[in-house]
Amino acid sequence: MKLLQEKILSDGSYSAGGIVRVDSFLNHQIDTAFLHEIALEFARRFEKGAPTKILTVEASGIAIAALTGYVMGGLPVVFAKKGYSANLGTDAYYTTTIHSFTKGIDCGLIVSKKYLAPEDRVLILDDFLATGEAITGLIRIVREAGAQVAGVGAVIEKSFQEGGQKLRDRGIRVESLAKIQSVNNDEIAFC
Amino acid sequence: MKLLQEKILSDGSYSAGGIVRVDSFLNHQIDTAFLHEIALEFARRFEKGAPTKILTVEASGIAIAALTGYVMGGLPVVFAKKGYSANLGTDAYYTTTIHSFTKGIDCGLIVSKKYLAPEDRVLILDDFLATGEAITGLIRIVREAGAQVAGVGAVIEKSFQEGGQKLRDRGIRVESLAKIQSVNNDEIAFC
Repeated sequence: MKLLQEKILSDGSYSAGGIVRVDSFLNHQIDTAFLHEIALEFARRFEKGAPTKILTVEASGIAIAALTGYVMGGLPVVFAKKGYSANLGTDAYYTTTIHSFTKGIDCGLIVSKKYLAPEDRVLILDDFLATGEAITGLIRIVREAGAQVAGVGAVIEKSFQEGGQKLRDRGIRVESLAKIQSVNNDEIAFC
Repeated sequence: MKLLQEKILSDGSYSAGGIVRVDSFLNHQIDTAFLHEIALEFARRFEKGAPTKILTVEASGIAIAALTGYVMGGLPVVFAKKGYSANLGTDAYYTTTIHSFTKGIDCGLIVSKKYLAPEDRVLILDDFLATGEAITGLIRIVREAGAQVAGVGAVIEKSFQEGGQKLRDRGIRVESLAKIQSVNNDEIAFC
């Protein structure tokens, strides 16, 4: 998606160690007009898979999933919560553990069993796909529910990390709107 | 907002101690078509205040803010992060501490100084307004930035708690789309 590459070049920042920061328009401040374009692009790429539900993880995935669900005709969105939340009350839930390389900690993902059913075809969306920890955690939850993965969409894939390739090797459809091949101090290269 | 009252009655649940759960359509699973109606209603109520930016807090406020920003012509949204996040890097940021009565813990709110400026007129949105802890924390951050509060919007206000009244007493414009007067085991009363 050309528009996204231009946005990363103009508004993002990047530094050694493969760090790409898009908090000016995607995951701290959100450019909502631009996010609508992102949502339309996901809708275009995934509409044939006829997903019944979108699954993401708090917090950065929520805005992306909400806009995409809206433009796909009002698809329900479920966001996995991190850690234990008292708000879930006594519901039964699916849980899995992922490792956050950014924060250097393990973290639980939690989804109430009420909101994923075996008949669901689940589109998984997130802001970044790098090691694939969060997304493979969400896939484990979808499988545990007996549901199908309709596809995985990431706004930005760091193709120099292994997450995307591992998912494609498992036969999962992965669509990344911008694929970053390499990041150096003052240079970023797209695939 | 009649539609929201009906949604709370049909899809929500409530129990003694003033607990109202709307995780089936608002803060775990999200009904995105319904959320669009919520967004249009916030837009209608706040457009005259001409906000330049929407501020909310992760995680439950993000979808509400993102859809409202989109329908208000692409207003940027900023969501405060909870606790310390490595993703913020070395940026200077505004911080404040709030108490979460649901979780029984104190919690930091963090906003990068890059995304709030003295010329901003900030619309603050969240899912619930009860004790007002989160929203008053966001107001402190707006004031610290030297910006103005254009208004406060909550999807659901628990009018039997003091948060909304305290804000109105300070002269802040507060719009709640459903105001709950009381909650008992199997009965909920709207104002």
